[in-house]
Amino acid sequence: MATPLTLYYAAGTCAQVVLIALYEADAQFTLKTLSFSDHEQRSPEYLTLNPKGRVPALVTERGVLTEVPALLLYVAQTYPQAALAPLDDAFALAQMQDFNAYLASTVHVAHAHRMRASRWADDEAAQAAMRAKVQQNMYECFSVIEKHYLGDKPWVMGEQFTVADGYLYILASWLKGDGVDIADFPRVAAHSERMRARASVQKLP
Amino acid sequence: MATPLTLYYAAGTCAQVVLIALYEADAQFTLKTLSFSDHEQRSPEYLTLNPKGRVPALVTERGVLTEVPALLLYVAQTYPQAALAPLDDAFALAQMQDFNAYLASTVHVAHAHRMRASRWADDEAAQAAMRAKVQQNMYECFSVIEKHYLGDKPWVMGEQFTVADGYLYILASWLKGDGVDIADFPRVAAHSERMRARASVQKLP
Repeated sequence: MATPLTLYYAAGTCAQVVLIALYEADAQFTLKTLSFSDHEQRSPEYLTLNPKGRVPALVTERGVLTEVPALLLYVAQTYPQAALAPLDDAFALAQMQDFNAYLASTVHVAHAHRMRASRWADDEAAQAAMRAKVQQNMYECFSVIEKHYLGDKPWVMGEQFTVADGYLYILASWLKGDGVDIADFPRVAAHSERMRARASVQKLP
Repeated sequence: MATPLTLYYAAGTCAQVVLIALYEADAQFTLKTLSFSDHEQRSPEYLTLNPKGRVPALVTERGVLTEVPALLLYVAQTYPQAALAPLDDAFALAQMQDFNAYLASTVHVAHAHRMRASRWADDEAAQAAMRAKVQQNMYECFSVIEKHYLGDKPWVMGEQFTVADGYLYILASWLKGDGVDIADFPRVAAHSERMRARASVQKLP
């Protein structure tokens, strides 16, 4: 039988979030690492798999999935014994996906204006103006996470560790490069500490 | 008993996507319309409900949900009799959420650089440079949707109408304002035609 899953991955990207989820699920999969410096995500072979030319992409027996919040839901539902999401509670599951969607659509996008500003303007001065605002935007995003999403329980969803925790951890790891001190967000900082103690995070390439 | 759900809405926004889903589910809810021209989404009362200062926000008996992909999953799971998502098939559900996540994180974000460029740069010339690239980016996004996501079946997920269809319809309705001719994307154009025939779309305020 063919290996059931293949994750296309690149160092430092949000594909790390899916890798943490797969490790936490104790899933069997093959890891394929793309070199962004060699533009492997733009190779004809890879674009056949994922026409968006980005990572992550998870190849399954039924097709390819490419967006982090969808992949996290898929991993949680496919490995229910790992209890990585509140699968039996529609409201709690929507809360978890609300958090994941905020990270994908607002926080990751705010961060991307530093390294990927050319997506949204061709002009070099405009790209510099975008880079200049990343620090402020990431500070505001993490203020929302600190005050609005995180409580005084250990994990994003409270007592239950979920796929959302790996997502928060990876995006928080980008704060330093964006000029934001994680110490300004004590709940986020304590959460990252807890994450670093997990075997899944320690196994990251 | 209190009305179970309240949707905070604003004309022309992606809150329309959630309204279509609630109509399709035949849900009971109260609609509260905010005036963006009066900055009601930034009022202290509304920020108590949704600190992000955006719509949609859905107030439920258990709390507030604010991100479109999460709200769509919530509506589909809360009203299973409406069959608005492939709830019994983890891969198909992840495919639907993959599509919704692409719309939220890439397509809506590409569009937002026309009206909301000030989120990502303070400088007026930089904002103008962002606006200038919106047409190209929306064209590329809808090329991915046309070639990669849509097939020759009537709906995003094939034969089954799902919450993803309302999302595609609303974002496609923004193309004209972004300088893109929907006729360049025949599957998207035919999909919008089918959507306009639905009672849910005809009921939109």
